[in-house]
Amino acid sequence: MKIALDGFGGDNAPIEILKGAALARKEYKIDIVVTGKTEKMKKIAADNGISLEGIELAEASEVMTAEDEAKTVLKQKSDSSMAVALKMVAEGLTDAVVTAGPTGAFLMGATMIVKRIKGVKRPALGAVMPGLNNPFILIDCGANAEVRPEMLEQFGMMGSVYMKNILGVENPRAAIANNGAEEGKGTDLQRNAYNLMRDNKAINFIGNIEGREIPEGNCEVVVTDGFTGNIILKTIEGMAASMFTMLKDVMLGNMWTKTAAMMLKPGLKQLKSKTDYTEYGGAPLIGLRKPVVKAHGSSDANAIKNAVRQAVQWSESGIIAEIEAILAEIPASDEE
Amino acid sequence: MKIALDGFGGDNAPIEILKGAALARKEYKIDIVVTGKTEKMKKIAADNGISLEGIELAEASEVMTAEDEAKTVLKQKSDSSMAVALKMVAEGLTDAVVTAGPTGAFLMGATMIVKRIKGVKRPALGAVMPGLNNPFILIDCGANAEVRPEMLEQFGMMGSVYMKNILGVENPRAAIANNGAEEGKGTDLQRNAYNLMRDNKAINFIGNIEGREIPEGNCEVVVTDGFTGNIILKTIEGMAASMFTMLKDVMLGNMWTKTAAMMLKPGLKQLKSKTDYTEYGGAPLIGLRKPVVKAHGSSDANAIKNAVRQAVQWSESGIIAEIEAILAEIPASDEE
Repeated sequence: MKIALDGFGGDNAPIEILKGAALARKEYKIDIVVTGKTEKMKKIAADNGISLEGIELAEASEVMTAEDEAKTVLKQKSDSSMAVALKMVAEGLTDAVVTAGPTGAFLMGATMIVKRIKGVKRPALGAVMPGLNNPFILIDCGANAEVRPEMLEQFGMMGSVYMKNILGVENPRAAIANNGAEEGKGTDLQRNAYNLMRDNKAINFIGNIEGREIPEGNCEVVVTDGFTGNIILKTIEGMAASMFTMLKDVMLGNMWTKTAAMMLKPGLKQLKSKTDYTEYGGAPLIGLRKPVVKAHGSSDANAIKNAVRQAVQWSESGIIAEIEAILAEIPASDEE
Repeated sequence: MKIALDGFGGDNAPIEILKGAALARKEYKIDIVVTGKTEKMKKIAADNGISLEGIELAEASEVMTAEDEAKTVLKQKSDSSMAVALKMVAEGLTDAVVTAGPTGAFLMGATMIVKRIKGVKRPALGAVMPGLNNPFILIDCGANAEVRPEMLEQFGMMGSVYMKNILGVENPRAAIANNGAEEGKGTDLQRNAYNLMRDNKAINFIGNIEGREIPEGNCEVVVTDGFTGNIILKTIEGMAASMFTMLKDVMLGNMWTKTAAMMLKPGLKQLKSKTDYTEYGGAPLIGLRKPVVKAHGSSDANAIKNAVRQAVQWSESGIIAEIEAILAEIPASDEE
């Protein structure tokens, strides 16, 4: 097992990427190739006591930034750390790839370089979230702002395969994120997707799910367009952060509350980790020929390590073959 | 000041409506007319020791249920408690109206019976939410699942007037809920609305806002279509509820955490109330000729009282005249 890791992607690159690579190497005993300016990485590793044992460095002279146009990852910046990492997995030199680089370039680069599984209309970005009752995948959480009903149908199929294989959920329940639970809710997009998903035997469709129920985790696959999905994902993250801030204010109130905070510390730490997306790794871009994981731009070493773990699990699973087989049997509905 | 209150709207009607009316009467010294089956209400009030002093009962023989088609509020169920309350405010018999009845019928009935302010393309449902830093209005949070850019522009104008008058925010900051902060994000809807709002001098436009920042309350007017707004609103509510449940589990852990929970009780109660939408009253349907407030279907007496308070404040404010004046000066952009 060998994972390509974009050494210069994300706000904390390359130091946290290198630290994350070292943690992942130690914990999972896998081979890792980190792409980027090799001399610079060697120096940073040496200066910070980061072991490069089992970690290969692959030269890439440039860095994709948030200011770059996405398409430059294909040509002008084809020697960027992101493009080089993507090409490694596309060419079969590694089994999977992880990057914390800018999302636009990542989506463009991954789709064009790694390429789609036959039959997939659009790859979708999934976010595996901790729910109150169960973890769930939110798919699409940002790759496709505008979609057609048959794309939502495919997101439901792919998300179900992912949750079955990665989280071991038998027959995962899938629902459409909507503005009401009743059939007929939403716009034409949700109404048409409802009919397609209900009739699709590769999906255990349970209908629509309202925003209120999403954080509860009452189904394992929440299907949505990338615009709405991005807003749901970030609203959940923002609400968790806001509540922890408010809770902290309560606890700093006086001597009694400070004492109470000490007593609650272990439990609160667990709660924080339960609502922390970085524990679940990165966001898988599902529908491509190889496992491609997008780590959060602000990832630290631990988040990178978890994203690598996710890439490894994904690569070891039969997800990609299973998606290919299901789409061969049940081609997506015709385009309108 | 006289408020019409739908006596049979909501899950806990009529008892919680009557209790809420009595609380509001006592606290705000206003006149209230409660619509519905008067004999039944008299009996329930007597049986439960609810004072009807200063509260008038107006006969309405029917009840709108969630199963009824929305349009029946106009004809077949024009003698429902909801329709009768709406007609009272439309005819000038009361200054405002509050209902906890089904949303579909409410939107249809309010728009057709109370009617729009001249120049308003679509009335929008607002939700005033507690933010970490500031309260904000989410508009539209459910009235119009599909909108055009010029409607979002008007939502921004109306929401700004509302926040200025009801919450006393000078020059409220308005932003479009979007899948990224940069200009150009989102779909054509958000991109076109961005241009319209930027150029509208009745709006203090600060650009796009991501989901993560919404709960923080970093602007006072969050503009969105009703589909996305409904999902944002309910995701925030659901996340708050989920986190309180998780926190409760932490506190029930052992003897120490139970002791800590007791020490934190007053602060946590305050926190719960800060994240409780019912404290902020109901959702105003903005853009109609009279104040119309939709209370949550599950409202208890306290939520009804707060919704009545909101209707009173709104009626005492100059909001409706101000919206009319602004729209006369800055007519919405042309339809596409």
